[in-house]
Amino acid sequence: MKLSDYFENAKGRGVIATADSKGKVGMAVYARPHFLNEKTAVFIMADRLMHKNLQSNPNASYLYVEEGPGYKGKRLYLTKIKEEKNSDL
Amino acid sequence: MKLSDYFENAKGRGVIATADSKGKVGMAVYARPHFLNEKTAVFIMADRLMHKNLQSNPNASYLYVEEGPGYKGKRLYLTKIKEEKNSDL
Repeated sequence: MKLSDYFENAKGRGVIATADSKGKVGMAVYARPHFLNEKTAVFIMADRLMHKNLQSNPNASYLYVEEGPGYKGKRLYLTKIKEEKNSDL
Repeated sequence: MKLSDYFENAKGRGVIATADSKGKVGMAVYARPHFLNEKTAVFIMADRLMHKNLQSNPNASYLYVEEGPGYKGKRLYLTKIKEEKNSDL
């Protein structure tokens, strides 16, 4: 299944993790990404710690856990390639 | 409420995040911690990526999201202070 299809239909909770340039790790509950293609995810980010960390360390990870028993979901390893302000998705 | 009481009674999902020495961030669904006191949490870790990352970067974060609507939970910012093998909690 394509990631875009998965995230359009799955029900669950998403969490993003980033780290600053010193390796201090932070996490936040986060809305699911949109997908430009199977390798490029787009996140709408408020100007808070997760976005701040990505200014000094482009690495991030996103974990999506589906509702219900068991541990179904997706884990994405992310590297920031671009940032845009206020553009339409 | 004490953290130990919170985690004994809460129902939800826990996620841990760590980063390696280069800042590459990883995440995993993780069991809730035990608490030695209000500032010292103990995690039982398998010998996988989260444990490996903590060998080169002692920082981690743990996010616990409660079941049900809304986004109640706890976020812990962690620094590894000690590691023990096979000891009783």
